[in-house]
Amino acid sequence: MEFSSKLLERAVNEMSQLPGIGKRTALRLVLHMLKQPKNQTLALSEALQNMRNDIKFCKSCNNISDVDVCEICANPHRNEKIICVVEDIRDVMAIENTSSFKGLYHVLGGKISPMDGIGPHDLNIQTLVDKVKTGVVEELIFALSSTMEGDTTNFYIYKQIQDYKIKTSTIARGISVGDELEYADEITLGRSIVNRIPFETSLKS
Amino acid sequence: MEFSSKLLERAVNEMSQLPGIGKRTALRLVLHMLKQPKNQTLALSEALQNMRNDIKFCKSCNNISDVDVCEICANPHRNEKIICVVEDIRDVMAIENTSSFKGLYHVLGGKISPMDGIGPHDLNIQTLVDKVKTGVVEELIFALSSTMEGDTTNFYIYKQIQDYKIKTSTIARGISVGDELEYADEITLGRSIVNRIPFETSLKS
Repeated sequence: MEFSSKLLERAVNEMSQLPGIGKRTALRLVLHMLKQPKNQTLALSEALQNMRNDIKFCKSCNNISDVDVCEICANPHRNEKIICVVEDIRDVMAIENTSSFKGLYHVLGGKISPMDGIGPHDLNIQTLVDKVKTGVVEELIFALSSTMEGDTTNFYIYKQIQDYKIKTSTIARGISVGDELEYADEITLGRSIVNRIPFETSLKS
Repeated sequence: MEFSSKLLERAVNEMSQLPGIGKRTALRLVLHMLKQPKNQTLALSEALQNMRNDIKFCKSCNNISDVDVCEICANPHRNEKIICVVEDIRDVMAIENTSSFKGLYHVLGGKISPMDGIGPHDLNIQTLVDKVKTGVVEELIFALSSTMEGDTTNFYIYKQIQDYKIKTSTIARGISVGDELEYADEITLGRSIVNRIPFETSLKS
């Protein structure tokens, strides 16, 4: 692609560094900005700058936060004995939306994935183990995605903390609410039969 | 969506103002930036800021440029007697890529579209008419997209300049090179038959 302006070219190149945004999309977005009032682009630029410069990660759970300890960890009404282990902040937001969990979180920042060069030491696993060591935690809920990397990460953490005799669980895998059985994949359907729950329990949730 | 950080929320909100980018995509992009080195986000932010502050539009053709008169208009080897009328800079880039046009461009900045509140006075039509009035221009090539808005814009410009007795043409509509006839739409196929060209001419192009 040849550009008539270096300024435009640089903006397009920088935009196209983002995942899922190619040169053409970047050009479309950048030309859109040029048609909008100037202060809109400046506001975007400033918001990105401020975010990257000033954002903090919660010292306790590694969630994104504006202060040293995030709102969830700082909330005295939440149960610090149960910790839900998740991959990133989007999972925290998704679980918070359900309003069905009142414990704390621990954000790993990814999954163990040798293919992508991500080992256990690139994730916030040690801080989780340290938290377990303090003896306050009674249960860890593994809520990573159900992939090979997720399972590997779960198992790695499990091995690290198994001496501390705390309860560990993973979120249930099964047929989504509203889904037709015939379209479910075999593994999920199989697991949902093996891990069936008493009908009375299902009435309550 | 509830965010654990105002800085994050603002960045996501600003990103999601861009066309085709919803809140979820914006969050994904912003979290990606947080995982990348700091200077990458700052470079993006700076590139957008510089572009919006310093970019110029060519005084002659309205193309995006870093200087007052764009490279194409300033090039003495280009034929100033033929002007190709296009909608935006992406069309200039597309035509330049074909290397088959050696005249100058005139970028309108859009099409007449009453539905979107865009009238002739919102576009750079007057400057084109003024250019024709000087008597230098011998031919206008209309290269707008073949939609109702494009046709309206072509016709509007045509009415404005018809007293000056210059040649006007539109780019050819027809079956794309490599396309199967059976999948072509009726109007395109019909036009390609009405506007058929001598076989000898087609051999040369």
